[in-house]
Amino acid sequence: MNNVRLDQTIKGLAEIGLAQMVITDPATIYYLTGRWIDPGERLLALYMNSNGQNRMLINELFTVPEELGVQKVWYSDTQNAVALLAECIERDKPLGIDKNMPARFLLGLMELEAASGYKNASVCVDRVRARKDKNEAELMRRASRMNDVAIGMVAAKVREGITEEQLAAEVIAAYRCLGAEGVSFEPLIGFGANAAIGHHAPDQTVLREGDCVLIDIGCKKDGYCADMTRTYFYRSVPEKLREVYGLVQQANAAARAIIKPGVRFCDIDAAARNIIAEAGYGSFFTHRLGHSIGIEVHEYGDVSSVNENPVEEGMVFSIEPGIYLPDIGGVRIEDLVLVTANGCETLNCISRDLNIL
Amino acid sequence: MNNVRLDQTIKGLAEIGLAQMVITDPATIYYLTGRWIDPGERLLALYMNSNGQNRMLINELFTVPEELGVQKVWYSDTQNAVALLAECIERDKPLGIDKNMPARFLLGLMELEAASGYKNASVCVDRVRARKDKNEAELMRRASRMNDVAIGMVAAKVREGITEEQLAAEVIAAYRCLGAEGVSFEPLIGFGANAAIGHHAPDQTVLREGDCVLIDIGCKKDGYCADMTRTYFYRSVPEKLREVYGLVQQANAAARAIIKPGVRFCDIDAAARNIIAEAGYGSFFTHRLGHSIGIEVHEYGDVSSVNENPVEEGMVFSIEPGIYLPDIGGVRIEDLVLVTANGCETLNCISRDLNIL
Repeated sequence: MNNVRLDQTIKGLAEIGLAQMVITDPATIYYLTGRWIDPGERLLALYMNSNGQNRMLINELFTVPEELGVQKVWYSDTQNAVALLAECIERDKPLGIDKNMPARFLLGLMELEAASGYKNASVCVDRVRARKDKNEAELMRRASRMNDVAIGMVAAKVREGITEEQLAAEVIAAYRCLGAEGVSFEPLIGFGANAAIGHHAPDQTVLREGDCVLIDIGCKKDGYCADMTRTYFYRSVPEKLREVYGLVQQANAAARAIIKPGVRFCDIDAAARNIIAEAGYGSFFTHRLGHSIGIEVHEYGDVSSVNENPVEEGMVFSIEPGIYLPDIGGVRIEDLVLVTANGCETLNCISRDLNIL
Repeated sequence: MNNVRLDQTIKGLAEIGLAQMVITDPATIYYLTGRWIDPGERLLALYMNSNGQNRMLINELFTVPEELGVQKVWYSDTQNAVALLAECIERDKPLGIDKNMPARFLLGLMELEAASGYKNASVCVDRVRARKDKNEAELMRRASRMNDVAIGMVAAKVREGITEEQLAAEVIAAYRCLGAEGVSFEPLIGFGANAAIGHHAPDQTVLREGDCVLIDIGCKKDGYCADMTRTYFYRSVPEKLREVYGLVQQANAAARAIIKPGVRFCDIDAAARNIIAEAGYGSFFTHRLGHSIGIEVHEYGDVSSVNENPVEEGMVFSIEPGIYLPDIGGVRIEDLVLVTANGCETLNCISRDLNIL
């Protein structure tokens, strides 16, 4: 158990009037215990109480021989795991609930009247997770360095006749070659008009001259996620997209330029969005500017117009403005940034200049 | 929208006194609509009502241009998706809830008093999913045929000095070569004593003479999952494990022999477990006999001592007895079976005899 992280979470719970919480998300359990356990459909629950009576409820199939600094409550497939969890909970007090707890467990606790109330309390641990410590910052830096190398390897594979699916396979091959644990999300590859389609999955589309080549990829290394986008062009650049590219490049730079502790997420979003909107492309920038990232590729803390929270030192998030022109193409330039004491460090170091392959 | 499946679900809801339900599980949405959408942390919800006023709430980032036979309610990242969903719901009636709905959405609906009550109603659609139609049965047959070929390819790669991780990489390579979409779960490879550890992840352990080689793998093909286990031996067989192998083989056969519509899951479990227990190994068979499978690798319907439901024609589940001797090794033999009108069809066709590599 990482007691610094645990204590900060307990403190956050106290601030919203809670003394106990159940966490079921494997990513948060990993963050707090250092151990990743994938329970599938079974219940894995970390029960925390400010009185120190913490428990880890775990199916005996998932061998965790080491001490985790928390007492384990083992159960078998023929036992009622939710009832065992309910026995750990103080019934006369409200209970913090993990935002990702599956309904079958939450409704089960409610039926057993396990607590006096139920509140989504994930923000108490998510705020701690959002501020990466030095070790985490270094892991994120390394994952992004690996991602930088990988995108170079992938760009080198762009050739006449290649399909999006084939290029996506090159991403996986590059990650394996570099020693990544895997992907933080399935590679998004879009050629030409496909690059204008939100969350387009790579298909059999063949590359043609004048296509933009949008590559949005992330590896996972030592438990932490990378995520970046570069948009290349194949052999030539349609004039419309050249203009768009310059705007997106400016928007990316403008947003990164204003980041420092105390600046609000929504103002960072606006710094990029205003440039695009003023040029008349506002309605073609169809998503938030970015998202926080760490153990998971999307973590608490959107970089969006509705998030008025200030950024803090240690936070890591993406800056990914984009302009998408239906039937023509799309451009997105995405970097991860780490908030420092006076500004930010951009974790991706590969050029953002227009690049014709 | 698959209206047969939808109507059967609505009928199941009526039987437990519900007229409306919200489904958020992408696998179930795929089952009902034919479209797989991965919403990440965003809300994707299929609202069903027996009055026919069905709705699909979906973020505008997830492009679904085609008609799905259900009216779409699009929302953007700056809108309150839970509030939009609440507007679709009849407030004065109880609401069926998807067993996997994340707590943040369920607690959000409760705060808005979106319905008069909330009940885990997944069983209404899970029971429909459990009975595979002819098309699904054929897809599952093909996925298992592919898995049979793959395990042969993997067994052929077993050699002096190979590690579990390397053999796991061969599984992935075999699936890619055969045209699988991916894995239905990460390959479980255990050499020697590691095979006795529940859910052991492949590591750097090197193969040695006399080791058992437990290979538990599944591919995904055309949306459906395979899952099988074979336990081989490298060069020689420890006497203790030879005895154990024979018992597990018998237990696997005995369970498959009694399967037909009307037989209870618990009796199938007992058919295998009794053979192992009578030989004195009962405490070393530490898990349920099997699990249902289809679009997901674990679906509703355990083959376990506590499931007294009868099996029905069209159900597909695993039969996977095992005996695990700490510090020595483990043997598991797993097949998928499809319940037919008079018995069952075993979907895996590769030998279950003791095989020394």
